[in-house]
Amino acid sequence: MSELLNDLYGPAHQLCTIPSDRLTLVLSREREIDLIELEQLCDAVGWSRRPLRRVRRALQNSLLRVGIWRHDPRVPKLVGFARCTGDGVIDATVWDVAVHPLYQGAGLGKQLMAYVLAQLQRQQVQRVSLFADPEVVGFYSGQGWELEPQGRRCAFWYAP
Amino acid sequence: MSELLNDLYGPAHQLCTIPSDRLTLVLSREREIDLIELEQLCDAVGWSRRPLRRVRRALQNSLLRVGIWRHDPRVPKLVGFARCTGDGVIDATVWDVAVHPLYQGAGLGKQLMAYVLAQLQRQQVQRVSLFADPEVVGFYSGQGWELEPQGRRCAFWYAP
Repeated sequence: MSELLNDLYGPAHQLCTIPSDRLTLVLSREREIDLIELEQLCDAVGWSRRPLRRVRRALQNSLLRVGIWRHDPRVPKLVGFARCTGDGVIDATVWDVAVHPLYQGAGLGKQLMAYVLAQLQRQQVQRVSLFADPEVVGFYSGQGWELEPQGRRCAFWYAP
Repeated sequence: MSELLNDLYGPAHQLCTIPSDRLTLVLSREREIDLIELEQLCDAVGWSRRPLRRVRRALQNSLLRVGIWRHDPRVPKLVGFARCTGDGVIDATVWDVAVHPLYQGAGLGKQLMAYVLAQLQRQQVQRVSLFADPEVVGFYSGQGWELEPQGRRCAFWYAP
């Protein structure tokens, strides 16, 4: 089994801890993200669509792309996703954190973020930032993320 | 003159508008940033030092590096700087915006940001983010940047 998982998800993969033993869910930063599957996942969580061509380039230019797959020896299914941009040294920013609604409530989001942060730690990134929708503020602040503003770093947005 | 400037600063360079006609200040995303000069600039604005080796890698991995140089045909001097990370398609984040104290108060910061945003616009980046120290909040909000929180995107920090 472990050899098959390495083949499918790369040696840096990690099994998710879940309350069911009928399912195997796997975190991986090495397995390639299928764009159509990613679009289906984004549809499922209710995000607006983006042109695939642009998403492909954005993924290529990202520092880190992480998926959660429902393991299947032939057709693993993408059920979670997150990516980071940054310089890989000083700064990283986490974007597009998604867990498929059918798989929510089992602690997958937390495991996904822990996996992402562990990868960034290995690169010795100094500081990680993230922008979250108001509904999920509690999710991040419960995991050691510090909500702005603390009067230290003020966040700004600009739409060119 | 224009040919010399192209040679020194690349074809995408732009002259700064300043109240003095004894000085020529040039914006460029193409001229290479000297790490020692950048460190001197960061010292001058009072930032804490970072290991040069890490700064070099961070610059290499950045999407965009912009300098302002005091033009001199032999030894141009770096007097301003900004860089961006991001995927070059959907997101970009501006970091390390600095203007040498001797050159502040002449609108250079504003011109630097306008140049940075123009470069990101050419790449059709959808959204730009930035974290600013509290002292310069007015600087950015006066230029069309939208300060968070607006209850839409909450900013988080994490130190791995």
